[in-house]
Amino acid sequence: MPVSTLGQRGPTEHHRREQIIEQANRHFRLYGYRKTSVASLAKSIGVSSAYLYRFFDSKQAIGQAICHSVLHGMHQQLQQIVDSDLPPIERLRHFIETACQLSLELFLQEGRMQEVVIEALQNNWPTVDQHRQDLLAQITALVRAGRESGDFERRTPLDEVVQGILFALTACLHPVLLEIHPAEKTRQGLLVVTPLILRSLMP
Amino acid sequence: MPVSTLGQRGPTEHHRREQIIEQANRHFRLYGYRKTSVASLAKSIGVSSAYLYRFFDSKQAIGQAICHSVLHGMHQQLQQIVDSDLPPIERLRHFIETACQLSLELFLQEGRMQEVVIEALQNNWPTVDQHRQDLLAQITALVRAGRESGDFERRTPLDEVVQGILFALTACLHPVLLEIHPAEKTRQGLLVVTPLILRSLMP
Repeated sequence: MPVSTLGQRGPTEHHRREQIIEQANRHFRLYGYRKTSVASLAKSIGVSSAYLYRFFDSKQAIGQAICHSVLHGMHQQLQQIVDSDLPPIERLRHFIETACQLSLELFLQEGRMQEVVIEALQNNWPTVDQHRQDLLAQITALVRAGRESGDFERRTPLDEVVQGILFALTACLHPVLLEIHPAEKTRQGLLVVTPLILRSLMP
Repeated sequence: MPVSTLGQRGPTEHHRREQIIEQANRHFRLYGYRKTSVASLAKSIGVSSAYLYRFFDSKQAIGQAICHSVLHGMHQQLQQIVDSDLPPIERLRHFIETACQLSLELFLQEGRMQEVVIEALQNNWPTVDQHRQDLLAQITALVRAGRESGDFERRTPLDEVVQGILFALTACLHPVLLEIHPAEKTRQGLLVVTPLILRSLMP
């Protein structure tokens, strides 16, 4: 996944920048994204606003960097499953379960959507579409592996299969629905939709 | 579907009651559900509040009656498909497409969720769960027909199959997601998830 540099500036003090993202994320989770100004964020982190502006040119740039960082972490964890040597059927099953579990953990806090996630969805930040593209690429790799091993059917166009799987998983992955439904209901849905997807892939 | 009588009272002037529900629905669509009082609704319909209270004991009772009426109409249209003599595969395909199309028409108005729908979802009105149960019953009938004709597999428990289908269709049927996504995106999703569901049913 390419590192987004939108609205970011200044020296390539990579480590310091990562620290700021982490501290800002913690601050936003505690005090909310909307009500926080760059000045109060800088104060809470213990740096000057000028110092923050060396790394990010606006609060939104910080918010986008947090989204990017959180989603990048999710995709790295999922990529370990994609690259694992589990049999293709088990690999896909494990991928779906983990993607749902991580979405619940990362997008919700005490059952409520994080403000930075709401902001990203409402304003259609590039990270939202990137997240979708990354999931599609990973599902493509998983389906392709199952086709090569002979575990999955090969008649349907690969692209259609992959888009269909992601669409069928909407209720397990979309922050808005994860917030509306109790986590227990989401997990029950996962238990019936995952085998449905696997049956649809049978040769 | 049993007619809900929750919070409804008075004479069984069935036809007049249906008229009031229809007029109230039109009024709420134009002026919003939340801002309307029973008094202003009565005035707009051209009756007294006392007359309205002969049929419904609160604004919420009117709202619930509207939801019931609208969803009952949807399920009657869908039931015609369930009862049709289309081949089972085509019958299920036609059912899914129609359910999505009707949901777009009934829950959204100019792309925005109707206030009475928001009210129903937020307060978990019995109509919401009833809607789900009705869809499950109709999908059960469709899958059962395909099993009897030998078109669909019979190994997976019927209940699991039906729950899985409804869960996979969440992005086509849930008012909150229908509102977030452009209708075009929903229809594209429908084009890939419907064949996926049909593939999952193959013997």
